[in-house]
Amino acid sequence: MTEQASAETGPPGAAPDYELDRDTTCVARPDAPGVYDTTLSPDWAFGMGLNGGYLLALAGRALGATLPHPDPFTITAHYLTTSHPGPAEVRTEVLRTGRTLSTGTARIVQDGEVRVHVAASYGDLAALDPEVRTSARPPALPSPEECAASAAGAAPFRRSTFMDRSEQLLDPATAGWSTGRPSGRGEIRAWWRLADGRDPDPLALLLAVDSLVPTAFDLGVRGWVPTVELTVHVRARPAPGWLRVALATRNLAGGYLEEDGEVWDSTGRLVAQSRQLARVPRTRQR
Amino acid sequence: MTEQASAETGPPGAAPDYELDRDTTCVARPDAPGVYDTTLSPDWAFGMGLNGGYLLALAGRALGATLPHPDPFTITAHYLTTSHPGPAEVRTEVLRTGRTLSTGTARIVQDGEVRVHVAASYGDLAALDPEVRTSARPPALPSPEECAASAAGAAPFRRSTFMDRSEQLLDPATAGWSTGRPSGRGEIRAWWRLADGRDPDPLALLLAVDSLVPTAFDLGVRGWVPTVELTVHVRARPAPGWLRVALATRNLAGGYLEEDGEVWDSTGRLVAQSRQLARVPRTRQR
Repeated sequence: MTEQASAETGPPGAAPDYELDRDTTCVARPDAPGVYDTTLSPDWAFGMGLNGGYLLALAGRALGATLPHPDPFTITAHYLTTSHPGPAEVRTEVLRTGRTLSTGTARIVQDGEVRVHVAASYGDLAALDPEVRTSARPPALPSPEECAASAAGAAPFRRSTFMDRSEQLLDPATAGWSTGRPSGRGEIRAWWRLADGRDPDPLALLLAVDSLVPTAFDLGVRGWVPTVELTVHVRARPAPGWLRVALATRNLAGGYLEEDGEVWDSTGRLVAQSRQLARVPRTRQR
Repeated sequence: MTEQASAETGPPGAAPDYELDRDTTCVARPDAPGVYDTTLSPDWAFGMGLNGGYLLALAGRALGATLPHPDPFTITAHYLTTSHPGPAEVRTEVLRTGRTLSTGTARIVQDGEVRVHVAASYGDLAALDPEVRTSARPPALPSPEECAASAAGAAPFRRSTFMDRSEQLLDPATAGWSTGRPSGRGEIRAWWRLADGRDPDPLALLLAVDSLVPTAFDLGVRGWVPTVELTVHVRARPAPGWLRVALATRNLAGGYLEEDGEVWDSTGRLVAQSRQLARVPRTRQR
């Protein structure tokens, strides 16, 4: 069972040398069912700690190894305190196993402290009814080439090893913050893919929704906007190629804001929806 | 401590004889810190079990008694299996206590089975920075009188004791489903308040977001659409009076749909945002 669990921690067909797979490796502890040893990689450092999407993907991978179903349908993380590069353990618990869905929790524990708490329901995306009835439309983005041509403006933001893990081609219409002219609409849109050529899968979607410049920047808020809670619904397995990620904030109030995300794959399918609640330190507001 | 905890389970200033307060009473167990005895009331029965918003409010009340902060800022429930009227216990756990936020979990357990798992971060709404910068606008609803005049069409749906706990005045533009003419837009809007005159508070908001006709009805889907997961962000303490609740679904795919909710208070303030993932049994789709 230990062998099975640790075998299952790899997304199907994933090459072991891709960054996301390497840095979310969880090794089942022989003496403790559902407990995994892992190492949080400094390559995903961002702001004052590690990126929340990376931590969610890591916890999500451990849950996928513990639960009988492979894919996160809805997964929620509460970020209790900053996680740091280095050894950590992921403690999972199965709450219920059903025919089409199973539900469990995962805790990323470092120095004996719970840093991230995750609760999720997993299913099998491949087994879903093929019918799609949607009124959602992909964001209107200029081509990757057009976005790339003006993406230089975002350079100052790239001083983070985390930003090197992915390619982000910002819609120029949402890049005004990088030259001191935020639109005030609270919108960020971009083409996104993993920098090392790894194709997107559900774990990559958990990362993608928390990988862009925060919408707060487009509202004139600078600096770190720590995530309190992040929920992602994975609605379909993404096709290979570029993803389109659209983030929007409508309500900055009382020092908190919501950030809604949509992820579209290269076939124009809505593959993930996300929402997070983030804190906006008063000093960061202009 | 027992007395303190069970005293704290009542919303500030709530009269004991209001239905929501009566039916979410949690009594701290003297011998088990963080564990509460409660009785799930048949008055909130809906579909095949008890309403998810009622169960969330009950778990949220127990968490508010356990955590040092009073108000749910972001709260997520996973509904594992149907809860039934009768005795239940709520097992809470404090994960972390901070200066402005504290985080914990609550489990509604019945017959030794976890029926609902809740994870949440609590804070103090009264202590929030008063600044509001929002681009969100309240839904354009006809007056309560105009909505009431045409609400008769919704009568068939009222065959549920749950629907009698609140007054719902549907926007006629989103009531076509009641006469066999759903708009297909997946929108439901209504004026909402508790039927017994209880003023809204954060607990009532947890109920309100899951209290209207499901958006699936406006998509031509009939029958029970069970909630898999529901997350609510409470953004402000609501003013007394009618609430405006707007629900929308954009993506029905693979037998699942998201339902996004917004709740506005009588002063026109956005007081809550919600999103749920719900399952749509194939047989229910037209």
